[in-house]
Amino acid sequence: RSGEMAKLTQLIDNEVLRAYATYATIVLIKMMLMSLITTYLRITRKAFANSEDIASFGKGESAKKYVRTDADVERVRRGHLNDLENIVPFLGIGLLYALSGPDLSAALLHFRIFTAARIIHTVAYLVPFPQPSRGLSWAGGYAVTISMAYRVLKTALYL
Amino acid sequence: RSGEMAKLTQLIDNEVLRAYATYATIVLIKMMLMSLITTYLRITRKAFANSEDIASFGKGESAKKYVRTDADVERVRRGHLNDLENIVPFLGIGLLYALSGPDLSAALLHFRIFTAARIIHTVAYLVPFPQPSRGLSWAGGYAVTISMAYRVLKTALYL
Amino acid sequence: RSGEMAKLTQLIDNEVLRAYATYATIVLIKMMLMSLITTYLRITRKAFANSEDIASFGKGESAKKYVRTDADVERVRRGHLNDLENIVPFLGIGLLYALSGPDLSAALLHFRIFTAARIIHTVAYLVPFPQPSRGLSWAGGYAVTISMAYRVLKTALYL
Repeated sequence: RSGEMAKLTQLIDNEVLRAYATYATIVLIKMMLMSLITTYLRITRKAFANSEDIASFGKGESAKKYVRTDADVERVRRGHLNDLENIVPFLGIGLLYALSGPDLSAALLHFRIFTAARIIHTVAYLVPFPQPSRGLSWAGGYAVTISMAYRVLKTALYL
Repeated sequence: RSGEMAKLTQLIDNEVLRAYATYATIVLIKMMLMSLITTYLRITRKAFANSEDIASFGKGESAKKYVRTDADVERVRRGHLNDLENIVPFLGIGLLYALSGPDLSAALLHFRIFTAARIIHTVAYLVPFPQPSRGLSWAGGYAVTISMAYRVLKTALYL
Repeated sequence: RSGEMAKLTQLIDNEVLRAYATYATIVLIKMMLMSLITTYLRITRKAFANSEDIASFGKGESAKKYVRTDADVERVRRGHLNDLENIVPFLGIGLLYALSGPDLSAALLHFRIFTAARIIHTVAYLVPFPQPSRGLSWAGGYAVTISMAYRVLKTALYL
């Protein structure tokens, strides 16, 4: 048992994999924060998606009006979906990239740019900042993911 | 070749990784069931998203009315999206947590609570149960994921 | 350091894992293309989701009309969401399947069918092809994922 643990610990002790674990976790926690922001706005704006969510506001027609959309809630939800669309590729391609044996410095550069790009994207979406700030931050994360995908295919290609 | 296979089999023979593989697969199959429920409801309620989906109901205006939204279909779709938002972090953070060498009993506790929370969340969403049952099940899965993220960062942090 | 790298390279040198890395990367790049198609259509159709996205069209009411939905943009977005709903299970279950030590030929068959099914699904959604072409391609990817999940649970089950 302890031999197995040691073997796995070696895996996570690899610096590139530790860096991947760190930045993947940070970016996932950032994505999870979108749920809290959505919930906070739904409660403060009284804009809910389900009739059972408004039971505490009383029964009848006066409560029904709170099952509605709110512009700011929808904005956070678009940011959340954009996170899913971009962080899922990073999780998959980033893990394979980390296993492909890149230089530590190159790996750190990729992971740091992606993480910074997604944090900037979220702030630019929620404030919102004027374009093209949101567009450029999106493109930065996208380009870094494509760069890692290129190395995975170059290293591991087996069709 | 067989030496490599043996090495990989050792990896999956680790009990924590086997537990991760089991619960991750269960929770992903649960999420995939949402697609079947959506399809079932779209057909029985005649509420489709695309004009090509209603060709079997005939051409012309009488068929066009079936390209529409249905309250129950939208409810399942919200549950499905909530699954994506919460199961993606579990998949990524849970794998890194499993590689961080936790005690088997602690790992099983995390994986079981998450899986139970997401199954309860789905039932609470689809029946629906009165709140706060859905909210609490969502929070249970969320808290367990944050707990695993904390251990990953404590064990592997490499910025 | 080089010993660790060698160990990791062995992992990615396993043929089944290399095949997983290849097809997972291809299918993720395919999913990422949906973002580019959405952006292209939003610009050419002038159909944006946020008021800050239309600042280049001038201020005032004449620009506000471009914050709107477009049938073709919504179609691509439905295809993108369907990708997320199906590719996330493939990424998670496929990795665990690859670690479960399957025959190379069986693994290649699963990965190739899934990748082909998702490419056909996208083409069938965007052209669009008459049904049941989109439905069948969706079902093909779904069935292959369930088949891999069955093997993962049979090999690794630890409840």
